[in-house]
Amino acid sequence: MNFPTKLVEDVVTEISKLPGIGKKTAMRLALHLLKADEMTSIDLASAIVNFRTKTRFCQSCHHISESELCSICSNSKRDSSVICVVEDSRDVLAIEDTLQYNGLYHVLGGVISPMSGIGPEELNIPKLLERASHESVKEIILALSPNMEGDTTAFYLSKRLVDKQVSISSIARGIPVGGELEYTDSITLGRSIMKRTIYQ
Amino acid sequence: MNFPTKLVEDVVTEISKLPGIGKKTAMRLALHLLKADEMTSIDLASAIVNFRTKTRFCQSCHHISESELCSICSNSKRDSSVICVVEDSRDVLAIEDTLQYNGLYHVLGGVISPMSGIGPEELNIPKLLERASHESVKEIILALSPNMEGDTTAFYLSKRLVDKQVSISSIARGIPVGGELEYTDSITLGRSIMKRTIYQ
Repeated sequence: MNFPTKLVEDVVTEISKLPGIGKKTAMRLALHLLKADEMTSIDLASAIVNFRTKTRFCQSCHHISESELCSICSNSKRDSSVICVVEDSRDVLAIEDTLQYNGLYHVLGGVISPMSGIGPEELNIPKLLERASHESVKEIILALSPNMEGDTTAFYLSKRLVDKQVSISSIARGIPVGGELEYTDSITLGRSIMKRTIYQ
Repeated sequence: MNFPTKLVEDVVTEISKLPGIGKKTAMRLALHLLKADEMTSIDLASAIVNFRTKTRFCQSCHHISESELCSICSNSKRDSSVICVVEDSRDVLAIEDTLQYNGLYHVLGGVISPMSGIGPEELNIPKLLERASHESVKEIILALSPNMEGDTTAFYLSKRLVDKQVSISSIARGIPVGGELEYTDSITLGRSIMKRTIYQ
């Protein structure tokens, strides 16, 4: 792409470093900013810098935080006997949105994926083992995506946690609410029959 | 969405003001920035502010520029007797990339679209009429997208330009290079037969 000016080239290069944004999309976003009020760009830039420089990861659960402990870990009303293990902070937000969980979290920062060169040592696992050793912890819920990487990571964690005094559970898998039997893949359908629950 | 901190909420709100980016994508981008080096965010923010505060539109053709006239309008080697009318600056970049055109441009900043509330008065048309009145201009090429809005705008411009001493042309429409006859829609195919060219 031939850029009309160096500033355009710089902004397109920087924006297209973001995941999932190519040069053409970056150019479209840059033109949008140019047409909008100057304050739109200044507000965007300062929000990015403020966020990046003042946000860190919770020392206990590795969730997004502004202080040493995140708002969930430091909330005494949460049930500290249960830890829900998730891939990243977006999963914490998704589970929080359900309003169905009152325990703590542990953000791994990824899943084991040999294809992407991510092994257990890249993940936030030692801190999880340390937390699981604490006598107040009774249950670890593995809430990882039901795919190859998620299943591998769950299996690895279950092996590492086996000597701790905690029960290990996994989120229920089955047919999603609103899903139709005939369009469900056979593995999900098979599992949903094997792991059937008492009708209430 | 429940945000873990105010800074996260601010950055997600600002990023999701960009066209085509929703809150979930904005959250993904914010997490990416948080995992990346702090300089990535600072470079991104300063590129945005630099671009927005130092870039303006060319006073003649309304293309992106750093000075009063853009690099194309101020280039004496370009053929100033031809003006190619386009919707926005991205079209200029696309045509420049073909290396097939050596004239000047005129960026309308949009097309007539009653559905989006954009009428002729929102577009950069008076300056085009002024440029077309200049005796050195011999041809106006209408290079607008072949859809309802583009065709409407081209028709409107041709009516406004009819009393000027310029010939008005339109970019060729037909079957794209690499396209297959049997999968081409009938309007395009019909036009490509009506507007057939001498075989060379």
